Parts: sequence; structure tokens; C-alpha cells
Amino acid sequence: MKSSQAAGVDPEFARRVRESFARQGLMAHLGAQLSVLEPGLAEIRVAFRLELTQQHGYFHAGVTGTIADSACGYAAYTLMPVDSTVLTVEYKLNLLAPAEGEELIARAKVVKAGKTLTICSADVFVRRGGEEKQCATMLATEMCLAGKTDHPRKR
Amino acid sequence: MKSSQAAGVDPEFARRVRESFARQGLMAHLGAQLSVLEPGLAEIRVAFRLELTQQHGYFHAGVTGTIADSACGYAAYTLMPVDSTVLTVEYKLNLLAPAEGEELIARAKVVKAGKTLTICSADVFVRRGGEEKQCATMLATEMCLAGKTDHPRKR
Amino acid sequence: MKSSQAAGVDPEFARRVRESFARQGLMAHLGAQLSVLEPGLAEIRVAFRLELTQQHGYFHAGVTGTIADSACGYAAYTLMPVDSTVLTVEYKLNLLAPAEGEELIARAKVVKAGKTLTICSADVFVRRGGEEKQCATMLATEMCLAGKTDHPRKR
Amino acid sequence: MKSSQAAGVDPEFARRVRESFARQGLMAHLGAQLSVLEPGLAEIRVAFRLELTQQHGYFHAGVTGTIADSACGYAAYTLMPVDSTVLTVEYKLNLLAPAEGEELIARAKVVKAGKTLTICSADVFVRRGGEEKQCATMLATEMCLAGKTDHPRKR
Repeated sequence: MKSSQAAGVDPEFARRVRESFARQGLMAHLGAQLSVLEPGLAEIRVAFRLELTQQHGYFHAGVTGTIADSACGYAAYTLMPVDSTVLTVEYKLNLLAPAEGEELIARAKVVKAGKTLTICSADVFVRRGGEEKQCATMLATEMCLAGKTDHPRKR
Repeated sequence: MKSSQAAGVDPEFARRVRESFARQGLMAHLGAQLSVLEPGLAEIRVAFRLELTQQHGYFHAGVTGTIADSACGYAAYTLMPVDSTVLTVEYKLNLLAPAEGEELIARAKVVKAGKTLTICSADVFVRRGGEEKQCATMLATEMCLAGKTDHPRKR
Repeated sequence: MKSSQAAGVDPEFARRVRESFARQGLMAHLGAQLSVLEPGLAEIRVAFRLELTQQHGYFHAGVTGTIADSACGYAAYTLMPVDSTVLTVEYKLNLLAPAEGEELIARAKVVKAGKTLTICSADVFVRRGGEEKQCATMLATEMCLAGKTDHPRKR
Repeated sequence: MKSSQAAGVDPEFARRVRESFARQGLMAHLGAQLSVLEPGLAEIRVAFRLELTQQHGYFHAGVTGTIADSACGYAAYTLMPVDSTVLTVEYKLNLLAPAEGEELIARAKVVKAGKTLTICSADVFVRRGGEEKQCATMLATEMCLAGKTDHPRKR
């Protein structure tokens, strides 16, 4: 991140992002936590549970993809204006190693922030016995919807 | 699918795939069901719950990605040999519309089956008031690990 | 394509797209031709030459990616307003088989047309001795820049 | 790259890779050069020509994708055994900025080297008036075909 980008950052970005994260029912259901949040950066962690496994007993790639996607979206959202919401346009995930361990950690950063589109990358690590091993990498395109609320619409 | 590919299909593919699906803790945690299974095809469905939402109250893209990924993996696995397991190498997901509705349905098919790698695509639909609307599309690369068990390793 | 989308198509879309194609120096350098153009659809063909090969003597994946990307961009551009230009945001290409043959053919279509973003897919075929074989598939995100010219800027 | 990976590197990797590059007709046709080659790393450069442009007069995304793909493939191939050839399974390219400048430079590295599959990333820069600006980023999956020649098959 260049400082010129950070210069225009909404001073209340952390509150805005954390409130959005708290509204995501899936994050609570997976037990995920937003552990780091800085302009252009976000980290999400989730502890191992049997409810999160694939057939061999490791973290399911769906959990890996979900926390990496949310981390990319929120890394991008830190740099977006107050009166906006963020949307994932698309992402690509490469799985590099079995996600076998006690905790899964997705670390995302903004690669290029634009007015409409922001490109992010994330690396995902699995912690096992005190050691972290990279198990996945993501490249994602996020979209800023200006003038739209990040809250659910009234029905 | 060409019939020449289907010709060599393991006659017990359905049992093998359904047992693997049943071992995925995440599928039960999301409430996902393997609703269709044929050689080269798989469909997974999940009903709406607040535990599956993103910040606007729709299905989270993580759920979309998870069931599309599992559907691609199992579509590929139907065509793999008895004594093998399947691994997702990578996938790319494009989100086309908000996933607002009562049920999310991922339909995957094999595009090209190979000895080591199988390429699959999936379309994801959201059902709302009796109508289905496409909300995502995926392109995925699956890998066959021959001679490896699909069960958890003994520890 | 739904007819509701086609309803608003610029009647002069073909001239607009063909002029843009003709300005792409790379298309001439590869010997590529825009062989089909309809609302939401584009096909690009290129004949085999040694100048287009990879190390085994087949069409280079770069040629495959280039004509598939251009076909996606122009399929999307057929549906964009008169006063706009098109930009590829990103694409993903899966190579399915060696591109060994006399001609390479990329067929692209619009999957979802939006005001800002349009999602396209393309299948690429290689023709050899009268038979076509699919050798690649692409998923691409295109962006409409409204109010911008598709011509080079004056310097 | 961990040194443990580099430890097993074919001592003649550079000759093997450069000979493969020299057989790619497309690289000569684009005027591309393999400017850096180390275990797990490759850089390819191409100078601006009108033959390489898109409709606005910048480098065509097809050129960006082509040299990034070749750089990823050759970065992976440096770490593969003597008696093998390399194949791109798939790649995803995000375009970050217009590629306006005198030279295009793709820098690729191995993210994870495996026996069968190797994951690479590449960043592409455009040089203009002495300054480099990133214009694209790629994530690619490469496959090692052991026991196969990298030369064209006899016919």
C-alpha cells in the first residue's frame, strides 16, 4: 500500500468493517474472528472443529475459501468510502497443501485499489504445533458500490 | 460426457461418493445435501438459515463457493477408480447476482476427465418463490490420487 | 441471452466492434479473424503458423488465451452502449488438450451482462483434418467504461 | 524458494530451459526475451511495437498473458527433472492498469513446487520513461510430465 492511498482512509474504517463482519451469520457459524485490521489489510482466523472438516478430517477447502474471500473483501473495504458497501466480483483459490492443524489463518492485502474495482490477494496458513504452513493462495476482485448501505434492506 | 468415458465408471461410484460426502463435517454443519449424483454430474443443495448469511442477509459467497467446490469434486470423483481419492487443485468463482432466496443449488459437471486431472464447471442457482436464478459460476481443477484412501488416516 | 437484453442492443454494434478489432495490432500480427459476431456472441479464428507455436510445435497457450480473451471482450462489447469502451478486468483459462491442428477457434458468449461488469465464457477448439476438438475453456470479467472512446487518445 | 528445493535442481537447468524457450515460435514472433533465469524464477521482456497493441494503442492483454504464462512455465521448469516437459494446466490473470510504455516485463516465481503440480505467480510491469508500473498479476498451475521429451514429436 502506498501512503497516498492510506491518506484518504475513512478514520472510522475499523468500526465500519467490524460491524459488517459481525452481521455475517456465516462467520459466527464457522467460529471465525477478524484478528487483524489495518488500511488495506485484514486477517481472519478460525479454530479447528469437526464441523469444519472434509472427508480426510482436515479443514474443508470451503472454509479456506470462505475466510480468504471475507479477508479480501474486508481488506478492500477498509479503503472504501463511508457511504458504500463491498461486493466480491470473483476469486480464484489455489490449494497448496492439506489444511491439517489447529487453526486456519487467512491474511489478505490490497494489491491495487481503484474507485470501482479493488484487486486483493490472500495467503492462507494452517498452524500445527506452533508452526505455520501455507496451504492456499487467493487472487480476488472486489467492487465498491458507492451510495449503497452495507446493512440488510428493510422488507 | 462421452459414453466412452462413462463406460469405465465404477459401478459402485454412488456409494463411494455418498460415503465421502457423509464424512465431510462441513456439509452437515451447513445443512447441505447431495441431491443428484450421476457419472460426471453432482448437485448439492442447502436451505437458507441465518447462520449462512453475509452482511446484507443473503447467502454468503463462502457457502456458494463451498457447495460448488464440493459438487465439482464429487462430479469428478464419480469417474475416478475405486482405489482413489479426490483433491481440489484450484477453482475460480464468479458471483453473478445476490444469492437471495430460500435455497442454494450447485450443479456441477465434468468438462474434461483425465487420468490425473479432471476439469469441472458448476453453475449455482438461488431459488426464490418457485423461481431459480443463476447467481454464480465456477471453473475447477480436480486431481485424482490413485492408490490413496478417501478415509481419514489412522493416527 | 435473454431477449430483454438484446432489445437494447446498439443497431450499429457490428461496425463498432469490427472497427475496434481492426485497431488491435496484435490480431493482424497473429493472423486472427473475427469470424462470427452477434449480440452477446463472438468467434475468432487463427490459422496455424510456425510463428504461433510453443516448444512442441502446437499452438502456444498464449495464442489460445489471446483469442479467447478478445472474443470474450468483443462478445461483451456488442451489448455495450455506443459511447463506451471495453476493458478486460481478469480471466481464467483452463487448457484441456494440446492445441494440435490447422486452425484455432475461440467461441465466446455473454453469461451475464451488467451495467458495469459483464461476465463471459469462451470455449476454444482446434480443428484438425476436418474435426474439431475442445482444447481450452475461459471465464472472463469485462468492464464497460461509459463515456470513454474506444480509439487511441490523441497525444 | 527454500534451499532444500533448490538443492535438487538439475545443474543444466538453464540450458534446458533456454533451448525450450528458443523452440517457441511465438516468443520470437512477439520479440520476447528470457532476461532472467534462476532456480524457481524467470523473467521475460518484450519491447513495444505496433504489432503488439490493443485498440487504444497499448500492449494487448494477450501479450501480457502470454509472457506471464511462459515465465510461470519456465520458472516451474527450472525445478523439474532433466527428463521431463512442462505443461500449463491453467492460469488466472488480473489486469491492474493500462500497459502503456516502452517495454513489458513479466517476473514469475514458484510459490509451491510439487512432484506433479507446481504453483507459480507472476507480476507484470510496464516500463515508461525509466519508471516501472505494475499492470497485471497472474496465478498459474504447471504440470510436470516426467519421462516425456520437451521436443516436438517426430511425425
